[in-house]
Formats: sequence, structure tokens, C-alpha cells
Amino acid sequence: MSCCGHGHAGHDHAGSAPEDPALAGLAIRPDRLLDRLERLAAIGRTDEGACCRLALTDEDRAGRDLVVSWMRELGLEVRVDRIGNIFGLRRGSEDLPPVMSGSHIDTVRTGGRFDGNLGVLGALEVVEALNDVGARTRRPLVVAVFTNEEGARFAPDMLGSLAYVGGLPLRQALDTVGIDGRRLGDELERIGYAGDAGLGLYRPHAFVELHIEQGPVLDIEGVRIGAVESLQGISWQEVSITGQSNHAGTTPMRMRHDAGYCAAAIGTKLREIARELGGDQVCTMGMVRLHPNLINVIAARATVTVDIRNTDEARLQEAERRFADFLEALAHAEGVKIETRRLARFEPVRFDDGIARVVERHAASMGLSCRRMTSGAGHDAQMLARICPTAMIFVPSIGGISHNPAEDTRPEDLAAGAEVLLRTLVELAS
Amino acid sequence: MSCCGHGHAGHDHAGSAPEDPALAGLAIRPDRLLDRLERLAAIGRTDEGACCRLALTDEDRAGRDLVVSWMRELGLEVRVDRIGNIFGLRRGSEDLPPVMSGSHIDTVRTGGRFDGNLGVLGALEVVEALNDVGARTRRPLVVAVFTNEEGARFAPDMLGSLAYVGGLPLRQALDTVGIDGRRLGDELERIGYAGDAGLGLYRPHAFVELHIEQGPVLDIEGVRIGAVESLQGISWQEVSITGQSNHAGTTPMRMRHDAGYCAAAIGTKLREIARELGGDQVCTMGMVRLHPNLINVIAARATVTVDIRNTDEARLQEAERRFADFLEALAHAEGVKIETRRLARFEPVRFDDGIARVVERHAASMGLSCRRMTSGAGHDAQMLARICPTAMIFVPSIGGISHNPAEDTRPEDLAAGAEVLLRTLVELAS
Repeated sequence: MSCCGHGHAGHDHAGSAPEDPALAGLAIRPDRLLDRLERLAAIGRTDEGACCRLALTDEDRAGRDLVVSWMRELGLEVRVDRIGNIFGLRRGSEDLPPVMSGSHIDTVRTGGRFDGNLGVLGALEVVEALNDVGARTRRPLVVAVFTNEEGARFAPDMLGSLAYVGGLPLRQALDTVGIDGRRLGDELERIGYAGDAGLGLYRPHAFVELHIEQGPVLDIEGVRIGAVESLQGISWQEVSITGQSNHAGTTPMRMRHDAGYCAAAIGTKLREIARELGGDQVCTMGMVRLHPNLINVIAARATVTVDIRNTDEARLQEAERRFADFLEALAHAEGVKIETRRLARFEPVRFDDGIARVVERHAASMGLSCRRMTSGAGHDAQMLARICPTAMIFVPSIGGISHNPAEDTRPEDLAAGAEVLLRTLVELAS
Repeated sequence: MSCCGHGHAGHDHAGSAPEDPALAGLAIRPDRLLDRLERLAAIGRTDEGACCRLALTDEDRAGRDLVVSWMRELGLEVRVDRIGNIFGLRRGSEDLPPVMSGSHIDTVRTGGRFDGNLGVLGALEVVEALNDVGARTRRPLVVAVFTNEEGARFAPDMLGSLAYVGGLPLRQALDTVGIDGRRLGDELERIGYAGDAGLGLYRPHAFVELHIEQGPVLDIEGVRIGAVESLQGISWQEVSITGQSNHAGTTPMRMRHDAGYCAAAIGTKLREIARELGGDQVCTMGMVRLHPNLINVIAARATVTVDIRNTDEARLQEAERRFADFLEALAHAEGVKIETRRLARFEPVRFDDGIARVVERHAASMGLSCRRMTSGAGHDAQMLARICPTAMIFVPSIGGISHNPAEDTRPEDLAAGAEVLLRTLVELAS
């Protein structure tokens, strides 16, 4: 293997095609992987069949406890860092920077079974497959579980991996206040995952994350494996509108300062911006809160969240600019005060082309169709890409459904993704 | 006085101009009225200075207890009916159908000091003014406090007066479930206002309600008294949208079934309908609830309320029709399910022209500017108009602000309104 030990050697992985005879018989076992996925999914299951393990809740703690118990059963050395990221180390034959793989196990309120969990449990299955044949990789392997990837409770999303790579000071991360008013650091202490390891505990030789696509592309095209070479840029804002509450019957339309109308106008403007810019541009108003939120009272205040994404930084900025211009005109036209607060901003990310080629090659050797693609969602991998060569492996999401209890991926695709991950990690670690 | 005892003799009040020498010296005392208004406003006062006495809450109970204690102090015979309406009877010299006056003391969550309260406490001040001079009217006077006028907790609004006039069966009214899931009948029992008097306890000879305008017309025009001759029709709906929750980053715009976008589109469409129809047409989306209401999840479900009002029934129906057509097109275009539930529907109301002329005449005799006008808000008077000659007296709202802690009316306007009420009631009762 040509992974030569220097951290950012993106293209070095691609030339070699190792067929190490010592690894004959090495393979993941789909039944074990599927069993662990189901057992983890049972924690925080809602009446409607969703997984609800918001970051650092009791349900998240139960999920963490289960994964840590599995890590220990597989002989991994478990460490938890100060922001609650969990790492399971499998030592290599040489004391070199490790190859890291993993994802997250926190979910949105209406999460599916595989989002994040597949990346963690797929990496655990890689470890167990290596244990099965008694194989030792040259480089250590680290299975990582990052804190608060979803951002559904604490903003920004990918907080644990962002802090890990130095993109967010520890103090600031710990002081983050969630949608329920709780402080992240307090919740970490409460669930027993305020660890003592420093941030950036391991500096990986490479990072690979297996994930469901969460979009429709692979499913629609009938492609089994995505070699993810890039990731959309993300712009998150919270917009607060202050108008004037008044009687819904007696106040002529022209005399209103209606924060509820402004919220609505933002929602329809976002659709317009996405249509005008076209291509990959997506815009979402996912959260709306009105005050006093009563049928016969013009809303005095509104708070909405705005999620804008594009694979191209210039176009993402253009979308942001059009939205900002709109807010200014809206505030003027409606006689309201509009304030915005940036919750997250990540530029589009290019992943490591060499690792993407390793993924493509192994998929091909297994007879699996494969395509290069962009991730529409944010992932911990985008943070790790700041400190080491990184790529992702996607498997299809049926119907492209995600963040929904109906999220699903065929068992054979889950297994195929884990097998490609196994071969990719072994090559990178050899 | 020509009020001849037959219930609907609308024009009979107008011709007479009584100058009863026995009533010389009869006048309301502004200081007493203002003091009672302030003492009632102190109950349920919020940090931001609003009155929050949602119907049948502990705060509403405290307000009721205070008003009932005042009624008893003034010698009124207090009775409470099965829907919690409170009546204080002052006997007349003859056992005839009484002249009734009153309003409500429940508030919205961000209510002002005078909305409803002025009508109740103004009528109490009329009673005390009569007590002051030891005058007895020919007809009895009844001061009424109607249950749940605002509708901020239980729909429909004006529930107590609607039930009183036979427009809502008692059982159905008691089974109404509030926004907090509580049953109205249970809450009435809980606060001790499930009375034993039957609905329709008194069949009034006439009903007059003093109220703040809650709109800007009198204030802008500098007119002191509104003789209210009609009232807007009201259409309330709850609209429920069922889409599909999905990832805000990975789901292309064309593949979305976004309930949050639909809520926004409803908000902007309502503005458009109001603009197209013009005139008095008002439309409001006062309440929005999204699920799961998270920044990075396309909303699966949305519930919004729609408040449409017009003084003209045909135009109100036209607005409803345009809105219904829009919902149908929206459901089709977005691939979502949209259901509507009617929360309230009241046709525009014509008040009694004879009483309006009595109001105009007394305002003129006091040197107060006065105009005929329409009420933009719903009031208990519109229900009483179904069973007896009815009208309303409006006083200016500064800046037209209502349902807002900044709601205000000048003390001299409060007093002027109560004085016009006194003279009107005395004329109707003589």
C-alpha cells in the first residue's frame, strides 16, 4: 500500500490494488451488522416508528452505552473526549497515525434507523471481521462516534467533529444552549459523557465515513455505491421578526405590522430563490414560531430558521445575498424589525480524490455499480477533511426518504456498503 | 319613553328625547370607573404589562370573583347560568323584560386593560350612578358578563353569548376542548362557575354593549363616540397539511412535499386575497404549528388558523371560495393532503337602527362628536342581536392598537362612553 504516512497525500491511495493473501476469508457478516442496527434503533423508538435520540438526552446516553459496550466486547480501547466524542482504538502492527472511520448516533426527532448509525456500526463490523480472521492492520484503526451531528437540539450541527478538528473552541461548544434551554456542557456531565481526552486525540492518516445517501439519486439510478467526492455548502440562519400584535378583525390590512405574514413571505421567497438559482440549490424553512400564536391576533413576533445549501460556494453566496436583500425590503415594506443570527456556515467541501478512487475500485471488484457524487447533507467527514484525507461511501436510501421514520435501505445495500468500507479501510491501513 | 315592551321594535326608541327631571344630577363618576378598570386589569398582568386572563383559567376566576363582589356591593342580584355567564339584576319599578348591558372579562394572552372590561364595568358604573341618586328605572337593568368571548382558549369565540341565545347547544358548548386539551365544562366546574340558571335566563327588552373600538377609525378621525350599526362577518378555519418529512439538504426542491412551505403559501395567499377584494376585507394567519419544527427537516405536518372577515356576506363568501380554490390547487401542486375544519362562522350583523339613533342623540346632547360605524371585531352584542334590539357604543383606541399590552384609551373617552351608555340605558329602561 502506498499510503506513505504523510497526512495529506490525497492521490497516493489510488495506484495500488492490494490483494493481500493474509486477508483471504476476510469479510463482514451482514447478520451481525443488521442485528446491531436493529438493537440500536430500538433505543428511543417513537410510537410512529421513528428513532428519537436527540443529542445528550437520556436516549442518546442509552445508545452511547450500548455502542461502548460493543466496542469493549470487540477489544477496542475506548476513550471519550471533552466534547463527548467516543473513540474505540484497535492497535496496528506499527504505531502510526490511525485510519479512522465512524459517524454519529444522535438523531433528529423523527430519525430513521440508519442515519449515522450505519457509519458507526459498519466500522464496528469491520473491526469484528478483522477479529474473526485474527488479522492485524499495519496502522491502527479507530472507530469514532461524534457528538451532536444532527444539530436538532444544539446548533451548529456536526458540533462534535467541528470541535475535534479545532473549528470551534471547547468552551464555546460546551456553552452552547439547546432548543430546550439546556447547556451542552451540563448535559454532557449529566449523561456521563464529559470525557477527559483532549480534542484532536488522534490525528488520522485518513478518515472514511459510510452513510446512507439520504437523497434519491442512487435509488432512482439503481446504483449500489456512491463514492462521495464533495459535499454541499450549508448556510443556517435564524430570522427574528418583531412586528406589532393587534386585533385580526379591526386592523385594516394597510395598517398591519404582521410578523406572521413576514414568516410566510420568507417561506415563499425561499422557494422562489431555489427556483431562480436552479441546479442543486435547496432552501428550507423548517422551523416557525409565532407569538402569541392565536387565531385572532396579528402576530407580534416570529422566529423562523432558514437552511440554504449549494455545492458551489459562489452560488450559495448569491442565494444568501438575494435572501438578505429580500429581508431588507420586507422589513421596510411591512414596518417590522428583522434580525438574523447565523447558526452555521460551512463552505462546500472537496473530499480526497485518491480515497474516492479506492472506493470505486473496490466497488468494481465486487461487481457493484458505483458513481461519484456530492453529498447534499452535512456530515462529520466534512470536518475531518480539514485535518486528513477524507471521503465517504454512500448506499441508497429507498425513495430518498430521510429524517423520517420511513427512511429505509435494503439489507443487501447496507451489507455492500460495509464490505466496501472494510476493503477501503484495510487498504488505507496497510 | 316609547319602548313599548315588544321585543323587536327597532325604530321605537328613536323618536323620544326624554328629559326626566327625576334624573337630574344623574351622572357617572369617572374616578370610580377608572379605579375598577385598573383593579381588574391587575389580575393576570404579565411581565410585559398585558392582561392574561384566558377563559376559565385561575386568572379568569379571580377576575370573575372581583366583579361578582362589586355586583353584590351595588345590591345586584347575581345569578350564574350553566355556561358560566354572570348576570347582576337591578330591579325596575315594573316587572318587565329588562334592559341588559355588559360584555366579557376574559382576555387574549396579550390582552389590554379595556377590551371587554369597559363594557362590564361601564354598566356597573351606570348601576352605581343610579344608586347615587336613588333612581329606579321602569324596566329592570341587568349587567351581563359572558363566558369565553375571546375564543383564545376555546373555539368558537363569543361562546357564552352564543349559547345564551340558543345558537349552540349547552352539551356541545360544555364539551368544547381548549388549546390545552381541557374540556370547557370541566374547567367551569373547577373554577366554580358552573351555575344553575338556565340559558336565556332573561329575555332582554334591549341590549347595549359599550366597548373600545379596537381599530383606528375613531382615533384617526378624532371622533369621540361610535354608534355601531353593524358588525363584520367572521370565518375561522383550521387548516391541517400533511406532507412528508425529509432531509433539508438532500431532497431536491422538485421532490418535496413540504408542509412548512404550504403554511407559508397560505400566509401569503391570504394577503393576496385581501388585496384583491379590497375594501374592508381582512385576512389573518395568526397561528402556525409545524412538525417536527426543526431547522434541517422538511416539515411533515403543519397546522395553521385562518381568520377572514368582511362586512358584506357575499364578499366574505367570495374570499372563502378563493381560499378554498387555492387550497385545492396547493394540495395538488405540492402533493400534500390538506384538510380544513371550521372553527367559527358568523354572518355580518345589522344592529338596531333605533338604538343607534338614541346613542347618536345623547352623544350630540353632550357635545361629543359621533359617527355611525361597523365593528371589525366580533362581540357578544352580535349574539344578543338575535333575540332583542341591540347596538354598541365605541370609544377610540389610541393608534387602533388592540390585543396588545399597548392597547389604550384616554380616560376622558372611557368616561364619555360610560356617560353615553348611562343615558342610553336610562332612556331604554324608562
